[in-house]
Amino acid sequence: MISIEDITLAYRNIKPVVHHTPLLTSRWMNEQCGSQVFFKAENFQRIGAFKIRGAYNKILSLSPEEKRRGIVAHSSGNHAQGVALAARLLYVKAVVVMPKNSPHIKVEATQSYGAEVVFCEDSSDDRERVAAALQKEFGYAMVPPFDDDKIIAGQGTVMVEVAEELDSLDYLFVPVGGGGLISGCAVAARHYFPGIRIIGVETEPANDGQQSFRKKEIVRIAPPATIADGMRTQSVGRRNFEIIMKYVDDMVTVTDAQVIDMMRLLMQRMKIIVEPTGAVAPAAAFRHGINGSGKNICAIISGGNVEPSLLKQWL
Amino acid sequence: MISIEDITLAYRNIKPVVHHTPLLTSRWMNEQCGSQVFFKAENFQRIGAFKIRGAYNKILSLSPEEKRRGIVAHSSGNHAQGVALAARLLYVKAVVVMPKNSPHIKVEATQSYGAEVVFCEDSSDDRERVAAALQKEFGYAMVPPFDDDKIIAGQGTVMVEVAEELDSLDYLFVPVGGGGLISGCAVAARHYFPGIRIIGVETEPANDGQQSFRKKEIVRIAPPATIADGMRTQSVGRRNFEIIMKYVDDMVTVTDAQVIDMMRLLMQRMKIIVEPTGAVAPAAAFRHGINGSGKNICAIISGGNVEPSLLKQWL
Repeated sequence: MISIEDITLAYRNIKPVVHHTPLLTSRWMNEQCGSQVFFKAENFQRIGAFKIRGAYNKILSLSPEEKRRGIVAHSSGNHAQGVALAARLLYVKAVVVMPKNSPHIKVEATQSYGAEVVFCEDSSDDRERVAAALQKEFGYAMVPPFDDDKIIAGQGTVMVEVAEELDSLDYLFVPVGGGGLISGCAVAARHYFPGIRIIGVETEPANDGQQSFRKKEIVRIAPPATIADGMRTQSVGRRNFEIIMKYVDDMVTVTDAQVIDMMRLLMQRMKIIVEPTGAVAPAAAFRHGINGSGKNICAIISGGNVEPSLLKQWL
Repeated sequence: MISIEDITLAYRNIKPVVHHTPLLTSRWMNEQCGSQVFFKAENFQRIGAFKIRGAYNKILSLSPEEKRRGIVAHSSGNHAQGVALAARLLYVKAVVVMPKNSPHIKVEATQSYGAEVVFCEDSSDDRERVAAALQKEFGYAMVPPFDDDKIIAGQGTVMVEVAEELDSLDYLFVPVGGGGLISGCAVAARHYFPGIRIIGVETEPANDGQQSFRKKEIVRIAPPATIADGMRTQSVGRRNFEIIMKYVDDMVTVTDAQVIDMMRLLMQRMKIIVEPTGAVAPAAAFRHGINGSGKNICAIISGGNVEPSLLKQWL
């Protein structure tokens, strides 16, 4: 299991290339919540999401020989872009396996960073099979989306930045897909704010993490139909689950409708674009803070990459 | 004509209540432009636009007797909200005359700050007539939208914040409606960056400022049909025109289509919501910077208050 030292080392490594994203606040939101709510705006991160942090930390840590051979990853979302940009910044060849029905805009973004895109069938199984075959054939190093110590340490750097700005924090809300972000952030948050309550958030259809947390073992669900595409993973990773069980205080859910409401609120009140997965933690914080507890709350906005056509539909 | 001292005094007065808004940058935008482009994000200002600056400075400057009697203003847009919030913060009664077909959301926002809304017919003439009648009947002080020294000095504080963050600046792009923002900013910009080129920007249908600039006298046009609702004023103010003629280097236009393209770019690339008028200066900076001049450019995003239904239509 990683420690705070792994995260602070990762932070030193990635600091020159990532943005220190702002902690946004809104008077209106604070009044509604009766608490001070800080939104960690990773939608303003490079590639539009936190994924560059872990990807860069991972690829940087490869041996010179591995770097020479190149890397492979599979993703239909922000991890693809994170890997592609990190590889380009480190002069490493990247091959990204993407489902053939991936949004055109995401394929294009991944290619625009210089990665080679290889298409596969839509199932998780096929993605992994194609990536593993490429790994075997060409000797590429695999850059996994979440179940990896370097990835986890990289994502945890989000909380190092939060700790640089805030002296105290009572609650932390983090979205949970495969668990990369929450596991890194939980290790860091418990270090910087020992008494904090750390709360993982999923959408109701994608509540595998909550089920796993309650059952104390990893639960795998059928591919969930949820608006939050970052939560369509079927289970959290092994390393991620271990950290969640040790450091996370609770796992809660919000509905897809609450996610859309929060996206609208963030657009209208705070003038920011947030993708559905990015609105999940703010939605939970909003429901929580509304009790008027007078606490300091941080909710992580994980990203802002949303298709204009889908955004239009939700408005 | 106001001086830099009026603006620095205004800044001391309003600093406790306004946000110091961020100067946003985008690697993608810089690469496209071949220049360093700084977006002054007044869409993150309180009430979602710069208008609170001038309104607060004006109302603060009223005599105790005037404050006791209350103030009146007329506006269908951001000035209404700026006046309403400024008056509430200063415990002054506010009456705002709004056209009866004003967007419901803007009327509600104005009322939510505690202002009394009085409806009038849709013409500029009727607005002014109703406001003048209220002024006469109740002794209210008028808070004009742009042609006023205190308002101009307040809007100029935008550039004081820019100068706090940047050491050098080659170009400044500012949207021009009635001329309140550009006149204040021009005085400040010429002081802090003596060699700067100051460029006012309008949409093509609303080019009364450009016509006035070229003709060297104020030109009044018919109410322009433009997407940029902050530019539907028919002429710039007298005080504003004087400053424009003294300090502004050029007045240029962009098309409504270019404004919509820039709104989309700012949403997709920078994850921010900008109203049409707010995208006018960035659109001009984008066209300008594309020459690859390697300069430091600032474009002011004047606000971010856009109707969700209209946003949907433009996406």
